[in-house]
Amino acid sequence: MNGFACKPPQSVTPNDFTFSGLNKPGDTANPAGFKVTLVTVDQIPGLNTQGLSMGRLDFGPGGVNAPHIHPRASEMLIVMEGSLEVGFVTTLPETKLITKVLQAGEAFVFPQALTHYQRNVGKGPAVAISALDSQNPGTQRVVAAVLGSNPKLPVEVVAKALQADNNVAAQLLSKFK
Amino acid sequence: MNGFACKPPQSVTPNDFTFSGLNKPGDTANPAGFKVTLVTVDQIPGLNTQGLSMGRLDFGPGGVNAPHIHPRASEMLIVMEGSLEVGFVTTLPETKLITKVLQAGEAFVFPQALTHYQRNVGKGPAVAISALDSQNPGTQRVVAAVLGSNPKLPVEVVAKALQADNNVAAQLLSKFK
Amino acid sequence: MNGFACKPPQSVTPNDFTFSGLNKPGDTANPAGFKVTLVTVDQIPGLNTQGLSMGRLDFGPGGVNAPHIHPRASEMLIVMEGSLEVGFVTTLPETKLITKVLQAGEAFVFPQALTHYQRNVGKGPAVAISALDSQNPGTQRVVAAVLGSNPKLPVEVVAKALQADNNVAAQLLSKFK
Amino acid sequence: MNGFACKPPQSVTPNDFTFSGLNKPGDTANPAGFKVTLVTVDQIPGLNTQGLSMGRLDFGPGGVNAPHIHPRASEMLIVMEGSLEVGFVTTLPETKLITKVLQAGEAFVFPQALTHYQRNVGKGPAVAISALDSQNPGTQRVVAAVLGSNPKLPVEVVAKALQADNNVAAQLLSKFK
Amino acid sequence: MNGFACKPPQSVTPNDFTFSGLNKPGDTANPAGFKVTLVTVDQIPGLNTQGLSMGRLDFGPGGVNAPHIHPRASEMLIVMEGSLEVGFVTTLPETKLITKVLQAGEAFVFPQALTHYQRNVGKGPAVAISALDSQNPGTQRVVAAVLGSNPKLPVEVVAKALQADNNVAAQLLSKFK
Amino acid sequence: MNGFACKPPQSVTPNDFTFSGLNKPGDTANPAGFKVTLVTVDQIPGLNTQGLSMGRLDFGPGGVNAPHIHPRASEMLIVMEGSLEVGFVTTLPETKLITKVLQAGEAFVFPQALTHYQRNVGKGPAVAISALDSQNPGTQRVVAAVLGSNPKLPVEVVAKALQADNNVAAQLLSKFK
Repeated sequence: MNGFACKPPQSVTPNDFTFSGLNKPGDTANPAGFKVTLVTVDQIPGLNTQGLSMGRLDFGPGGVNAPHIHPRASEMLIVMEGSLEVGFVTTLPETKLITKVLQAGEAFVFPQALTHYQRNVGKGPAVAISALDSQNPGTQRVVAAVLGSNPKLPVEVVAKALQADNNVAAQLLSKFK
Repeated sequence: MNGFACKPPQSVTPNDFTFSGLNKPGDTANPAGFKVTLVTVDQIPGLNTQGLSMGRLDFGPGGVNAPHIHPRASEMLIVMEGSLEVGFVTTLPETKLITKVLQAGEAFVFPQALTHYQRNVGKGPAVAISALDSQNPGTQRVVAAVLGSNPKLPVEVVAKALQADNNVAAQLLSKFK
Repeated sequence: MNGFACKPPQSVTPNDFTFSGLNKPGDTANPAGFKVTLVTVDQIPGLNTQGLSMGRLDFGPGGVNAPHIHPRASEMLIVMEGSLEVGFVTTLPETKLITKVLQAGEAFVFPQALTHYQRNVGKGPAVAISALDSQNPGTQRVVAAVLGSNPKLPVEVVAKALQADNNVAAQLLSKFK
Repeated sequence: MNGFACKPPQSVTPNDFTFSGLNKPGDTANPAGFKVTLVTVDQIPGLNTQGLSMGRLDFGPGGVNAPHIHPRASEMLIVMEGSLEVGFVTTLPETKLITKVLQAGEAFVFPQALTHYQRNVGKGPAVAISALDSQNPGTQRVVAAVLGSNPKLPVEVVAKALQADNNVAAQLLSKFK
Repeated sequence: MNGFACKPPQSVTPNDFTFSGLNKPGDTANPAGFKVTLVTVDQIPGLNTQGLSMGRLDFGPGGVNAPHIHPRASEMLIVMEGSLEVGFVTTLPETKLITKVLQAGEAFVFPQALTHYQRNVGKGPAVAISALDSQNPGTQRVVAAVLGSNPKLPVEVVAKALQADNNVAAQLLSKFK
Repeated sequence: MNGFACKPPQSVTPNDFTFSGLNKPGDTANPAGFKVTLVTVDQIPGLNTQGLSMGRLDFGPGGVNAPHIHPRASEMLIVMEGSLEVGFVTTLPETKLITKVLQAGEAFVFPQALTHYQRNVGKGPAVAISALDSQNPGTQRVVAAVLGSNPKLPVEVVAKALQADNNVAAQLLSKFK
């Protein structure tokens, strides 16, 4: 979460606080139909200690930003173009899905580290700008954490998580890249 | 995360700082073979503002605490009895599984809000005591968040998350309680 | 900074996490040629305790978001359209201006509570989306704080601040609305 | 804000926690009639991670500590000698001046990063001791940030901030050192 | 630590940020020869959420501010008059006393919640101004916590703490008011 | 409080998150009849930035964990075996002892940095597991800080703290190791 030293104020330059290229649509020609460009302290050194990062999210038609968490951040987004279904799931015991379809100009909040997703439910592309309250938020796709870790989780653990038998779990594990 | 008022110091009593019953084994006669008893600010009002909670974890043979996160906490545990396989998964892009088999007397750390699990890999029951750095850590089982929310997530979102087709996703969704 | 109670999780609704209308250009037909629409915990109750807010900034040609601070937040913005000159001033003893002209798709960071400004230096309108790391960041235009408070600051204090005589200060104070 | 390593406890000495000379009146023979001596982590290494700094403020008759902010701190002061008018300005939309004349022995609070000032309104010198809740609070004189940065802000930006025309802004900018 | 609601900005008044009387010497005609006047959120409502408090410490000749802690704060002080011996003790395993004799104008830092004391080692009275980085720091005199709590600690516990037998402990306990 | 750099995620190993040996009873054959084994960031590098540590407390019959503080942490414990009397003392002006006898399976909270103790009041050994909300909590035995620092505190300071005369203080100081 830290470990970056701060530059002395005399030697900072505007480029320490700048990042370019967020006007270019992300390439959504992939199975998810989705691309995120995150700008964190890795991209802008001046974000160090500032508790912020931002990102651009691009969705092709039907594109999905699969359920994921940011372990060290809350998130807020604004839809810039198209129509996005968004949702997050609350903690136990409710496990309630809070969901909404957003049009351009609508904002939504995903509370600290809760599983959430977005999906393009419009006919054309969709674009959103998001903000996170950490310069180093991290991202974990939760199904990939269960089915696609390196090395893989034990099949018995995955089966219990899925409420399925070992065969089903093994098949899902073997197909997940 | 807040909203509890603090009692005036004159009127606090020992019971505001106490919780009982953690010596009783949790009932593991359930499909997961696992039971957790968490003691948070809901159980001990005196935890308010103290940034801590603890829990007792019981595992029957083969019992699994399925992959989950605590959105507002890091966790540390000590195995008291038996043999537990534990693991957590790092964020993107590594999605690395950090795993270890712990014997009684061994401690392990699960960093802030990362997906983690425990499994009893011994022949008898296993017991662990865990600590979390929030009086209100919250828990979310990540597969249950994807397959078992109320209402359910759209099948297309689940399918993309699983890297599977809609039929597989629909079947998993329908069987999950 | 606080004082909002959190809703019980059972009763939250999607609307507690949503805000609409950020697709509509702000009305820049004013002397500054600038309009900000901030979305904080006052607009989205679900932002409570989440440490985030966002805003849309609209600039007419030549429009200026005059030097200001957010006393409880750092800020980051992305230019969505047009061309913005941005800058912030460092603390004593350097009082160095860190400035840059940003095109669409460029991001910039304004560190915690430092005086900063933006100006449209393109021919058409300019639009930016900004993020702040507080649900209640607050805004103070620093010249308005000195010349336009209610009641006004003493003329001698303003004169010393301007390194000018009392007549100059009095005139600026009297014209400022 | 950080970047200082902590000394090992075996090697700390009393001098790591000490600073001298705050009994000497600051030299107020300057245009502002004011001198501050701040003691931060730069002066006392032992303040590192402790979230505190203190200062001595000296005012000649009529001396002014011009409107300024501490971007990373709240401030509290106690008047030790003389009579000080103090004030701070609230955020938008109120931009309300909260002001009071303090006599020796009176304390006042300036909330986090809000523009504030002090002025000697007695006949003799005035002295105050102040406390700030950061080991590295920073100071920015807000008019100097607008008129006296290096390099200077664009005249059009300054004019908009002043609600004045470019000639007035240019003159103020050119005279400010 | 919390539980105070913030006033709406429209209704705050200067008196919400003010406290008087710190110019009056505290009454040191007591066995300790010492008097502290602390100004916390209990005295100044405007300190709420600001993370600061201050105090005035008065010492008669030989007066002692007995070893104590502030459980929720670091402390820094400046000697205004006289000559103070100050010291704090580090944690285990060093339990090292860091001590220094301060003259008027000298500052010293007592790190977060460590046991510390001050003693007037001059011939006349001594006065210091201190700052703490919490609006609600709390104070606990550590010997009084062991010998003078209400009800009293068990004699066996006190004896072990003193490395003395029960008779010595019982006598100290019975004499302590 | 820190100064440990974080390892890059590619090179972390399970051992960075593990500690062994907490199943072995601590050796209580010492005057206090007590032994603590704390697991902090010094033992588990992976605790860095995670805000947690844990410990095992062993008590022989009559064993006492003498009154102490953790300057940077709150604490919570669960009794695993035996019967422990626990207590903490509130701040001034109450100096109230909040105490309770706990049996196996009972939990108790010691608020941030308050003086607290535990004593085995059963016939056999007693064992507890404790959690603290800092990776570097620190421990200070408060009577040892007053009687056993290196170098020793002045006898006059100790006498005032004890409300005893210098002879009593000198004797306690000289006997304390």
